Amino acid sequence: RHEILGVVTSVGSGVSKFKAGDTVGVGYFVGSCRSCECCGNGYENYCSGMVLTSNGIDPEHGGAVTQGGFSDVMLVNEDYVVRVPDGLPLDKAAPLLCAGVTVYSPMMRFGLNAPGKHLGVVGLGGLGHVAVKFGKAFGMRVTVISTSPGKREEALERLGADEFLVSRDAEQMQAAVGTMDGILDTVSAWHPISPLFALMKPMGQMVFVGGPTKPLELPAYAIVPGGKGIAGNCVGGIRDCQAMLEFAAKHGITAEVEVIKMDYVNTALERLAKNDVRYRFVIDVAGSLGSTS
Amino acid sequence: RHEILGVVTSVGSGVSKFKAGDTVGVGYFVGSCRSCECCGNGYENYCSGMVLTSNGIDPEHGGAVTQGGFSDVMLVNEDYVVRVPDGLPLDKAAPLLCAGVTVYSPMMRFGLNAPGKHLGVVGLGGLGHVAVKFGKAFGMRVTVISTSPGKREEALERLGADEFLVSRDAEQMQAAVGTMDGILDTVSAWHPISPLFALMKPMGQMVFVGGPTKPLELPAYAIVPGGKGIAGNCVGGIRDCQAMLEFAAKHGITAEVEVIKMDYVNTALERLAKNDVRYRFVIDVAGSLGSTS
Repeated sequence: RHEILGVVTSVGSGVSKFKAGDTVGVGYFVGSCRSCECCGNGYENYCSGMVLTSNGIDPEHGGAVTQGGFSDVMLVNEDYVVRVPDGLPLDKAAPLLCAGVTVYSPMMRFGLNAPGKHLGVVGLGGLGHVAVKFGKAFGMRVTVISTSPGKREEALERLGADEFLVSRDAEQMQAAVGTMDGILDTVSAWHPISPLFALMKPMGQMVFVGGPTKPLELPAYAIVPGGKGIAGNCVGGIRDCQAMLEFAAKHGITAEVEVIKMDYVNTALERLAKNDVRYRFVIDVAGSLGSTS
Repeated sequence: RHEILGVVTSVGSGVSKFKAGDTVGVGYFVGSCRSCECCGNGYENYCSGMVLTSNGIDPEHGGAVTQGGFSDVMLVNEDYVVRVPDGLPLDKAAPLLCAGVTVYSPMMRFGLNAPGKHLGVVGLGGLGHVAVKFGKAFGMRVTVISTSPGKREEALERLGADEFLVSRDAEQMQAAVGTMDGILDTVSAWHPISPLFALMKPMGQMVFVGGPTKPLELPAYAIVPGGKGIAGNCVGGIRDCQAMLEFAAKHGITAEVEVIKMDYVNTALERLAKNDVRYRFVIDVAGSLGSTS
């Protein structure tokens, strides 16, 4: 619904960045106030006037409810559209518009993009699996932390992670204490975070992108003696999104997807609820991709 | 015990930074490993080999237990000693060595030192009251947040804060939502932090220096949609400590203290336990300050 790629069919008279035939993307939002500090700093994603791509209220179009990527056609201001670089396959690149930028943007913001640094990635779902790919492309050492021992092969062999930790294995976790520069926690379900802080070096930075309803437990001892921190992150700005796509094209980073037709959407939603997808469904609205389900 | 000022009586043969007669200070620690990433970056305070000034084990002196500032004389490596600039009164400057650097260091690290930015200071004790003074000296707008309405006059008139919020007053708190660039939380007792996150702008940074034993409650909604963060802080490195003293001397920043003699220490400790001090006791070991108790 908000990871959308397509081809421009026509442009308005004031449009200068794109022309008909260009391959473009639209992410989590299609508008913002353009005048606040966030917009000025390239973080439209934190603007209080941000207009969601799906189920958003669009003041520039008379308060219409935005319809997102299930639509046949979309009308979007060029400032909220990104160019898709040559060489990125449409189906596998679509999830980058949300999952990709959600991990790339905080990696840039917190300096978790430097060769030789050690990144922990908690959870190996839609976000986690692209975080591993970005981390490796940045030249980092990447360790996946998961509750599922069964994901080891996937992490190490398919995604190229350097190490794999089972979070319930006290011995494995103890051996990794104090080794990571930062951690990207992509798990939505509630889970203890203080064992993750222990994995980080002093001044380590955790980025949290999940949304459990029960508050996280944050002991002072986990952050005060080591000067460690945790920050939330919600997608990323247009500048980061464009840079992320260019970086992805250069390094061959795409998401693992299953392409479906529109008439499979309800079945896909049922399968999503059961976590039965690796890692993202991509809907072929235009009928040009060749579905796999 | 670890906010110590004094005059150098003699120096060893390899000492180049100081000479007898210099006024110097020693803070929270008197040693570190000198080879880790933290030491290399000027954050000896996060070195795992840090030697506490009081009750620390000092490997350079055969594992002796460090005695801190209750001693008559101290032997400290020059690299862990700071110069006290002219014009800083010894008694009122001593608490800067811990309380001062504990607020100054994270203000520098997280950019909470820029004119025009809005800083919230939670709690008006030994740390909070100097945080207000540093914030104002940086040219910031400073709002004190306290559970005690009785501290309003102190905050606004004596310390120069711009605003005062009673944290239990829902209306006052609501009116300040989304206005602060960062918050320094200096309260040791457990308290809810999600109302404090609401006070910050998107991407706001909270710094936490207290130590409640019960874990803080950190709801994902408090940090994820706005990309906000919280980091712990424990004192600061030698470089920050020296810079802090120079900044304090330039701007006339000192702590509010009550000077006592060594024979009053036990009474003072009893009064401390009852929170009966504004804001720090300073012990006059050398008998040169003129006590006020």
